[in-house]
Amino acid sequence: KNFDIALIPGDGIGPEVVTEGVKVLKAIEKMDTNLSFSFTEFPWGCEHYLKTGKMMDDDGIDKLRHFDAIYLGAVGYPGVPDHISLWELLLRIRKEFDQYVNLRPVILLNQSLTPLKSKTEEDIDFLVIRENSEGEYAGAGDWLFKGQPEEVVLQTGVFSRKGTERIIRYAYEEARKSNRTLTSISKGNALNYSMVFWDEVFEEVGKEYPDVETYSYLVDAASLYLVSDPERFEVVVTSNLFGDIITDLGAGITGGLGLATGANVNPEKQYPSMFEPVHGSAPDIAGKGIANPIAAIWSVSQMLDFFGEERWGKAVLTTIQDMVKETEMLTPDLGGNAATGDVGDSFIEKLKIT
Amino acid sequence: KNFDIALIPGDGIGPEVVTEGVKVLKAIEKMDTNLSFSFTEFPWGCEHYLKTGKMMDDDGIDKLRHFDAIYLGAVGYPGVPDHISLWELLLRIRKEFDQYVNLRPVILLNQSLTPLKSKTEEDIDFLVIRENSEGEYAGAGDWLFKGQPEEVVLQTGVFSRKGTERIIRYAYEEARKSNRTLTSISKGNALNYSMVFWDEVFEEVGKEYPDVETYSYLVDAASLYLVSDPERFEVVVTSNLFGDIITDLGAGITGGLGLATGANVNPEKQYPSMFEPVHGSAPDIAGKGIANPIAAIWSVSQMLDFFGEERWGKAVLTTIQDMVKETEMLTPDLGGNAATGDVGDSFIEKLKIT
Ligand SMILES: CC(C)[C@H](C(=O)O)[C@@H](O)C(=O)O
Ligand SMILES: CC(C)[C@H](C(=O)O)[C@@H](O)C(=O)O
Repeated sequence: KNFDIALIPGDGIGPEVVTEGVKVLKAIEKMDTNLSFSFTEFPWGCEHYLKTGKMMDDDGIDKLRHFDAIYLGAVGYPGVPDHISLWELLLRIRKEFDQYVNLRPVILLNQSLTPLKSKTEEDIDFLVIRENSEGEYAGAGDWLFKGQPEEVVLQTGVFSRKGTERIIRYAYEEARKSNRTLTSISKGNALNYSMVFWDEVFEEVGKEYPDVETYSYLVDAASLYLVSDPERFEVVVTSNLFGDIITDLGAGITGGLGLATGANVNPEKQYPSMFEPVHGSAPDIAGKGIANPIAAIWSVSQMLDFFGEERWGKAVLTTIQDMVKETEMLTPDLGGNAATGDVGDSFIEKLKIT
Repeated sequence: KNFDIALIPGDGIGPEVVTEGVKVLKAIEKMDTNLSFSFTEFPWGCEHYLKTGKMMDDDGIDKLRHFDAIYLGAVGYPGVPDHISLWELLLRIRKEFDQYVNLRPVILLNQSLTPLKSKTEEDIDFLVIRENSEGEYAGAGDWLFKGQPEEVVLQTGVFSRKGTERIIRYAYEEARKSNRTLTSISKGNALNYSMVFWDEVFEEVGKEYPDVETYSYLVDAASLYLVSDPERFEVVVTSNLFGDIITDLGAGITGGLGLATGANVNPEKQYPSMFEPVHGSAPDIAGKGIANPIAAIWSVSQMLDFFGEERWGKAVLTTIQDMVKETEMLTPDLGGNAATGDVGDSFIEKLKIT
């Protein structure tokens, strides 16, 4: 089986960490004669924008359309405003390819990595399923009476029946399949339209899944539980904005963004899905060879799962788990002093299917 | 000086904890002949609603208008929907009395209370200034094509120039006065109208405060920093919804909601301000005499500060600080086995002005 992968290394540390992820895929190709990967690199991102005035080619979306997956490093560069750097690349791809499921595992790989007292690997192990196509990120709003005393700015979250139902249904399926509880995070007591609707859909769809045990928390309470009681969570489903917050907090309790990955999935495979470390371009450490490639390698694990190569997906994750136990082999953010490339090299030495 | 205080003990554990707060105010009255407090109790809340069909009297807002302060216990009761229990009492009072400043201290009183490894009292000590009158909580939205496949629900955050500027200005003043840094928490990279506006106003008002050192974080990053690096924060200003999330997380890293207080302030004193523990009505433990009254007593400290009686405000907080060091005198949520009333009694025994 061959998989066509579009690489968008992007800005800052993006290229450095994508290099390591590609190393891992190439190593797998060598070990498994049934698998091959081809890579096409696109030089898009903020530096490209500064040179060409464009984040991606005009027909960029069309160029990406026929790939099996997109592997993204990071986008963002000081001086390039977000409405360009994000809305014309990252958020645009998520939306145009209807990658409505954002899968973000929050797994404590090693007890020493959590800032929480007395929490172990067993206590922090859940999957956040974030709505990724609409909601608070719809980009809808208005800016009235600009510069006048009566100036008022409106930001509208858009929650469609279709969009809300499909993400919640996806989450119920995932909870059923993996025999875990499902927790919805919302805020119906204050967001009196969108989140009341969300709660209704969560309950309604739940009728079709009487076997799935459910919980429903307010986002404020959920944030507190994440630090006091993370063992409550198994599968979590939430809106675009709340998912953004909850998953960074999830990264916070499991050792930081250097270990946080996200898959932007179009489950119907009508369009390519996109796999990315969540850490961003980190311009302050770019080019120093100290960026932590583990989140990017974890993205490769998610990609392999998505390809149906779960044995390899699992092997990659297990190797990550083994590696974070040996500090010498880690980058400075995790207390080691290895370089980005050394982490990748030692990773592929250890990688094996079990 | 006499202060007229309206008591709304409310539901669940509300009356139990308000009783202890009132005990403290009465003790202060005895110790300080210059001060007196008069109390008028209003039986409003969800149980009142179940009896009368109303959360508060029709002219409730008028009845409250001339008090110096409102002291609220908690509202909420299983079976009473939020759009009644909250929108017709708590959120209504915040809005109708233009209590646009929500002051929520996040202070670690004792190192043993934080779930974070290696963080001490010095590391967690900040004040969140939450916008409390509009923003995401404006209650604006629409529910279209209900029950149809094209159903779509809109929730609109409303950020006025006036509302945004005054809270940000309040925060700069507070930072200047207390000689602390000011951190704004927003999300301009995704909320492309409201939070871009917020960031602009934060920068613009900042020009008048060149002496105040500022930071601006995305809400997702800020959530992570709260668990990895809480020492970054001194004075924080943020929107209504983000303030809600950030302060519960703040409660999470300082020992839970039993220690979280909030002042809903109308700084111009055109209307009464409201003081409340943040924990809610906790129906599961109501009536058992085990509710933790410390948040409610801390609300009294905030009230005294607001009255200009900072010496007493400080004395109350210092006594709280002393008390949380002796576990025997605490309620079960903090690892003790004292009853609610015992905590209050032992509190007033210890209370003294220094
Ligand atoms: C870069 C930003 C727009 C993005 C988001 O908010 O979704 C990021 O924080 C993430 O979580 O992927
Ligand atoms: C009860 C609820 C509406 C309220 C809020 O969201 O503001 C509470 O969580 C708080 O923080 O005071």
